[in-house]
Amino acid sequence: MKTDNDKQTKTKQEETKKKEILTELQNFHKKDISFSSGKILSSMCTKPLKIVEEARKIFKETNLGDKRISEGAIEIEKICIRWVGDLLNLNQPYGFITSGGTESNILAIMEARARKREAMKESGEKEMMPEEIIVPETAHFSFDKISFLMDIKIKKASADKNFCVDLNSVKNLINKNTIAVVGVAGTTEYGSIDDIEGLAQICMANKIYLHVDAAFGGFVIPFIRKLNYNVRNFDFGIEGVDSIALDPHKMGMNIIPSGMILFGKEPKFSVNVSYLQGKHERLLGTFPAASAAGCYACLKFLGEDGYIKIVKECMENTKELAEGLKGLGIEILNPTMNILNFNIRKEIYNKLVETGWIISKTSKGYARIVIMPHTKRTHIKKFLNDIKQLMKNAKN
Amino acid sequence: MKTDNDKQTKTKQEETKKKEILTELQNFHKKDISFSSGKILSSMCTKPLKIVEEARKIFKETNLGDKRISEGAIEIEKICIRWVGDLLNLNQPYGFITSGGTESNILAIMEARARKREAMKESGEKEMMPEEIIVPETAHFSFDKISFLMDIKIKKASADKNFCVDLNSVKNLINKNTIAVVGVAGTTEYGSIDDIEGLAQICMANKIYLHVDAAFGGFVIPFIRKLNYNVRNFDFGIEGVDSIALDPHKMGMNIIPSGMILFGKEPKFSVNVSYLQGKHERLLGTFPAASAAGCYACLKFLGEDGYIKIVKECMENTKELAEGLKGLGIEILNPTMNILNFNIRKEIYNKLVETGWIISKTSKGYARIVIMPHTKRTHIKKFLNDIKQLMKNAKN
Repeated sequence: MKTDNDKQTKTKQEETKKKEILTELQNFHKKDISFSSGKILSSMCTKPLKIVEEARKIFKETNLGDKRISEGAIEIEKICIRWVGDLLNLNQPYGFITSGGTESNILAIMEARARKREAMKESGEKEMMPEEIIVPETAHFSFDKISFLMDIKIKKASADKNFCVDLNSVKNLINKNTIAVVGVAGTTEYGSIDDIEGLAQICMANKIYLHVDAAFGGFVIPFIRKLNYNVRNFDFGIEGVDSIALDPHKMGMNIIPSGMILFGKEPKFSVNVSYLQGKHERLLGTFPAASAAGCYACLKFLGEDGYIKIVKECMENTKELAEGLKGLGIEILNPTMNILNFNIRKEIYNKLVETGWIISKTSKGYARIVIMPHTKRTHIKKFLNDIKQLMKNAKN
Repeated sequence: MKTDNDKQTKTKQEETKKKEILTELQNFHKKDISFSSGKILSSMCTKPLKIVEEARKIFKETNLGDKRISEGAIEIEKICIRWVGDLLNLNQPYGFITSGGTESNILAIMEARARKREAMKESGEKEMMPEEIIVPETAHFSFDKISFLMDIKIKKASADKNFCVDLNSVKNLINKNTIAVVGVAGTTEYGSIDDIEGLAQICMANKIYLHVDAAFGGFVIPFIRKLNYNVRNFDFGIEGVDSIALDPHKMGMNIIPSGMILFGKEPKFSVNVSYLQGKHERLLGTFPAASAAGCYACLKFLGEDGYIKIVKECMENTKELAEGLKGLGIEILNPTMNILNFNIRKEIYNKLVETGWIISKTSKGYARIVIMPHTKRTHIKKFLNDIKQLMKNAKN
């Protein structure tokens, strides 16, 4: 028999152990770079809203992938999809909260495959091999993964001087094996927005699925349009758009993991599962309901006005940085959203990295800065000042 | 200018809003069924360890997918992989923490594809179409998704009377297009363990990749073997095993999402990403470091002894349920681990579901119960009592 004393000793030992482990984890975390440090100038994630953590806590044990036991969580997901459907001009949205952009893009291309195969079956056409997708050369690297993963040939359409996809290039790449065309609304490297209306025309004329990757731009473009920035639309208001991916864990202010995929029509893909008593339409089996709760909290807490305020500040800070760089005689590319590219000498770029700035380069060699909500005026001033000093030192 | 009063009013309004939203979420959550209710008898997830939430909190904003800013988190992941490598008899493990079993299984089949294609390239063989995988008919439904996703033909090997894969059936299905064979260590429906040694012999003789899906069994089998249960081994100690998937968010006691994939050799798959300054080997781009922290906390807090204790209790409770059912004259299948199947009349099964018990049926029609750590003796007694009453009522 265990005595009360034994139990107390054990509880005490466990408490000590717990504290030790958490201290160890805190020490590891000191090696990570935090958003609050102001050093991170090229991540598409940011410091999430405070409410999210509390929202997640409520659903910490709930599996959104098991419909039998997560009725409440599934309702939350549906509400989120409906709200974001409204934001994206879609009356009757279908879709899921996902783990992020890659999963959303996978689900979109899976849906394109499912529709194409069904259409071919109905028309009695033979299966074609290999299937092909056309993506802009500026598309996210997840499409290179998807090509290997799904065994689909990836064809890259060239971009114009503004890093938007060239419509003629897309047209020329289409053939009978094309199952989907991808447009990007907010490219990872440049923040450029493809001509989705133009792509939609091409896709409708050729009966091809059109997916819009707005992982980054989805929570930016609708709001800067409301702020009267003159940028292209990308949403379901454009006839011919079949699906849109957008990430609450980027500019949506949610905690990782949380992406979203919305479809204009009910998706066809699913597998039957006996022991779950029904169909399973997600890619992942087990999925954190906490991600849906976090999403709900962000959308409701911020509302349109809250997002507009956040995006406005990011855009103003981007302008501040752009002006500062120009003032130093540095050539910048005009930003479409809160991503800024500029030309800087290799030695100075490297020195900035050495100093601890987390910045990056595009595949074409431009420096790339993403001005997220965690980046404040003081950080921008400090960054500009460091560049100024480095340029001065280089001259001497 | 905003006055201090304005600011205070705003903060107060925001606090009220926050509380309202959290109350709404709590109300939604009332519709979910909690593990503590004792009603959930067929989920493979469970109430996670308390320490996990605090561990996750530390890394709430950290993206494990961005190596530049998550050095500490990546160290944690490596330590977890090494510990689990030890558990699975692997000296130099490679692998990742993933979102769960589906992603882990995808990564395994991607790796099989990468190796097969490289080998064919080296030998100058032509690409074969379509690639094929052989899985037991008892395999998890994620492999049906993988078949469609990866455009791979799935061939199902038959199972013997103990729901373990028939080795001759596997042998007969192998051809030059086979890129991988999957064995299951702890099938979802029956908890049965395939003859991994037998599969390894076949795979080595035919130079085929062998993946073991131990999503459920990975955190059970090593411990019941230490408790001297006479069950098969499945780990890297068996020559010919190329990868193993196992889920910390199932019997590993971690919060969703957290799976794991371990490889015996360095995986070949990756894509180059300019703006992240290097290769990206994961399936998902952005990934919560919190999942790694939770994993570290579980492994270190419980240790081998802790897991053994948990698994022992689950096994004893499974036995308790088995004996109880037998006592009621119900035919049961002998359980391999903490999953129990039995034959029960449809009317009684349906009544149990109506009463609120979350139970399930296998594709062959057996009732299926998973005795997880959240299921206590009192719940089992209550469940048995309900069956007894229903049987009695049915007689009258």
